[in-house]
Amino acid sequence: MLEEQLLDRLRQIVGQHGVLSQSNELYAYSIDATPLLQSMPDVVVLPQTTQQVSEILRLANEHRIPVVPRGSGTNLAGGTIPVHGGIVLNMTRFNQIYEIDEKNLTVTLGPGVVTAQLHQAVEAVGLFYPPDPGSMRISTIGGNVAQCAGGMRGLKYGVTKDYVMGLEYVLPTGEVLRCGGKNYKDVAGYDLTRLLVGSEGTLAVITELTLKLLPMPETKRQLVVFCSKMVDAARIVERTVAAKIIPATMEFLDRETMKVVDDYSKLGLPKDVAAMLLIEQDGSEEQVVRDVERIAEIARQEGAVGVEMAKTPEDGAKLMMARRSALAALSRLRPTTILEDATVPRSQLGEMVEAVSRISEKYRVQICTFGHAGDGNLHPTCMTDERDREEIERVEKAFEEIFTTALQLGGTITGEHGVGLSKMKYLPQRVGDGGMALMKGLKAAFDPNGILNPGKVIANGAPKRVVVRHP
Amino acid sequence: MLEEQLLDRLRQIVGQHGVLSQSNELYAYSIDATPLLQSMPDVVVLPQTTQQVSEILRLANEHRIPVVPRGSGTNLAGGTIPVHGGIVLNMTRFNQIYEIDEKNLTVTLGPGVVTAQLHQAVEAVGLFYPPDPGSMRISTIGGNVAQCAGGMRGLKYGVTKDYVMGLEYVLPTGEVLRCGGKNYKDVAGYDLTRLLVGSEGTLAVITELTLKLLPMPETKRQLVVFCSKMVDAARIVERTVAAKIIPATMEFLDRETMKVVDDYSKLGLPKDVAAMLLIEQDGSEEQVVRDVERIAEIARQEGAVGVEMAKTPEDGAKLMMARRSALAALSRLRPTTILEDATVPRSQLGEMVEAVSRISEKYRVQICTFGHAGDGNLHPTCMTDERDREEIERVEKAFEEIFTTALQLGGTITGEHGVGLSKMKYLPQRVGDGGMALMKGLKAAFDPNGILNPGKVIANGAPKRVVVRHP
Repeated sequence: MLEEQLLDRLRQIVGQHGVLSQSNELYAYSIDATPLLQSMPDVVVLPQTTQQVSEILRLANEHRIPVVPRGSGTNLAGGTIPVHGGIVLNMTRFNQIYEIDEKNLTVTLGPGVVTAQLHQAVEAVGLFYPPDPGSMRISTIGGNVAQCAGGMRGLKYGVTKDYVMGLEYVLPTGEVLRCGGKNYKDVAGYDLTRLLVGSEGTLAVITELTLKLLPMPETKRQLVVFCSKMVDAARIVERTVAAKIIPATMEFLDRETMKVVDDYSKLGLPKDVAAMLLIEQDGSEEQVVRDVERIAEIARQEGAVGVEMAKTPEDGAKLMMARRSALAALSRLRPTTILEDATVPRSQLGEMVEAVSRISEKYRVQICTFGHAGDGNLHPTCMTDERDREEIERVEKAFEEIFTTALQLGGTITGEHGVGLSKMKYLPQRVGDGGMALMKGLKAAFDPNGILNPGKVIANGAPKRVVVRHP
Repeated sequence: MLEEQLLDRLRQIVGQHGVLSQSNELYAYSIDATPLLQSMPDVVVLPQTTQQVSEILRLANEHRIPVVPRGSGTNLAGGTIPVHGGIVLNMTRFNQIYEIDEKNLTVTLGPGVVTAQLHQAVEAVGLFYPPDPGSMRISTIGGNVAQCAGGMRGLKYGVTKDYVMGLEYVLPTGEVLRCGGKNYKDVAGYDLTRLLVGSEGTLAVITELTLKLLPMPETKRQLVVFCSKMVDAARIVERTVAAKIIPATMEFLDRETMKVVDDYSKLGLPKDVAAMLLIEQDGSEEQVVRDVERIAEIARQEGAVGVEMAKTPEDGAKLMMARRSALAALSRLRPTTILEDATVPRSQLGEMVEAVSRISEKYRVQICTFGHAGDGNLHPTCMTDERDREEIERVEKAFEEIFTTALQLGGTITGEHGVGLSKMKYLPQRVGDGGMALMKGLKAAFDPNGILNPGKVIANGAPKRVVVRHP
């Protein structure tokens, strides 16, 4: 519990309506989109200006109060759970797009802008911001940058980090700094911009962003491929890339996910297949048609049992929406849904999906797998019940084996969700003791008192699965 | 001068032939491609294995001996001048390509591989590594990564940092670490890979790299545009991008550069124009033809006095080679050629070129400007004589004003050459005191004793223009 005096000071900075301190108000900020994790903050503060963020941080730093910056809290790694209480810094009032610069192909905006609103605004002038994380209708761009969010276009277009050109950010001391800008080339010193992307709110609070945009591709087309074996699907992905075609999107759903999605979305998907691929290509009309036809040919050669091209843009959009609905569909099955994020080099996709299936049987847990086949980013998703401690233990063992397997295949413990709390215990395995020591050194350079999102990413100690704490 | 005992220890590590310590051998390592800078190393060491690099660094760290990692020394910012003597670590024996992974579209190689050899090797299997710095026939890929080298394809394809996926590197303690890998998505902790790119040998020694490749574009076409005013050229660049066309290359040469290049390459360029644009587009045949025709149309509308399409690939290659020869051509004019690297947002290109021209008149120095119009990366190049102290002073004042102007226009002090020694005094202006403090903190996390490339990038004190030191 913060002293009344500190709460008053916060009210002076952001105004009466910018401070939430009643239990019922705090509750929403004790959780994020990650299951099984909860911890109450002491106070929620909603700044509206960089100056206010600066004053809040200076105050918090002086009094060693934890500060957890947060957008919409859609992250799936417990990144915004205030495990040490303190201040949740709700950045959603920074919700303005300041400038779409059509000459330099950049957009400058506040971190509280919702991702889908950014998409809409730039698309209205024929421009394109490719990163499209699953939560884009709710997530904020500040959260996307803090987590280095991915999405369905990673193979061709990269992820959030590939689009962040400049930042304004505030250090725990209250210092307001800028890095990067609108220059396509800039090698003046270490790349602080890139270091802040994906730093999960542990290094600084981002108050303004300049993002790179692309021209909107002329057109796009979708293709769906059904396979009787997962290895066929993996081989089709592999051969497509080997044929020098880089589709915008190559998603896959395994048999179980397909079944659930079909129950939910009524698409009439075939029931007797092991996997489906959902492929989208964009670009010029001729190129797109040629690529899609070539992929269809490859799919048939590799034994696909069905290949269907979307006849209209509406058909195509419906197919993509089916993939987007996977999490929602799966989460209806049982009380608790844990969506994970193991990633492997693309060539290991087939092996990894099979490993997940073996592991799921070994531990007798229900895991469906879907994800981004083109970039090897799998989302093994477990339907379970958090009230069943014995089952939850098996679930945790299964995921541990999944991550170990991903690492053995040259993969990583998280492709796009971040480390947060959920992956902390696996991080040393991924980056080694040396990597951990360096990261701690970087953290100390930005936040020597450790007030920014403490207990996350590189903190000491394994995370507790369920952390409920009342102030 | 290093004690004989230390030289013996180095010989034990790398063998007799891996240690150069005679003055005549050291001389070549007292300079790099940057004019006016020279300082003698105490010894040059040529390791062949990561283990050897580890032992050398451990020894140097123990005895606080400076270590300057170096490839071919083609950098233009004095980045590889051993200003504090010590060991120059020549990495050119790490010259093997270990693997071209066609399934994952990656290449894994040693830092000593020459950039053009990398191009050749991947192109032989239909793949493409876009960064093409001016020195690519000589430069090593390790140097490219250390400096985050750019090239002529920045606008469409980005620069070196956009292609580095994984690194093996050695810390001053001798610890051998790895970061990144072959995963297209990976958010496990802070992005150490990206931090090491462009760190100019001040954080660690890179011993192995994994780079991202693209499929080779199907075809490419070139177009040359002549303008009677520089502003016309700038407007053509601007309108091309506004028309949602992103060419692979958009280079420009000003009148003076054109004249000199033409004398050198005998291309028969017109003499009565103010600027030329050299544009290349790549992609599918239809797309390329359409884009090039559309650009030609825009150029004519915007008052270009000549628009010529390359009739054959040989014609096109010749045109691009003319641009590549600009530095060589200019450097024949006077004893000393200083090629600079001011960069601005693309929309400020015309204004910046005009400012350079004004500044050159003001200080009565000869500055030709050419560069990468598409990404706002200018190379104002001064032909001077280092023996004329008075003129050199005017040259330095002119460049100081050029950098200040670039910063005022939202630009940066170096787009692709790096900070090294040459830009150190401008870096605080670009990143601020706060940015400098953070960078020093990062440096300390990697290299607490400051043995790696000391006196560079973020070191204290302004650089001396001419530093000659004999051991």
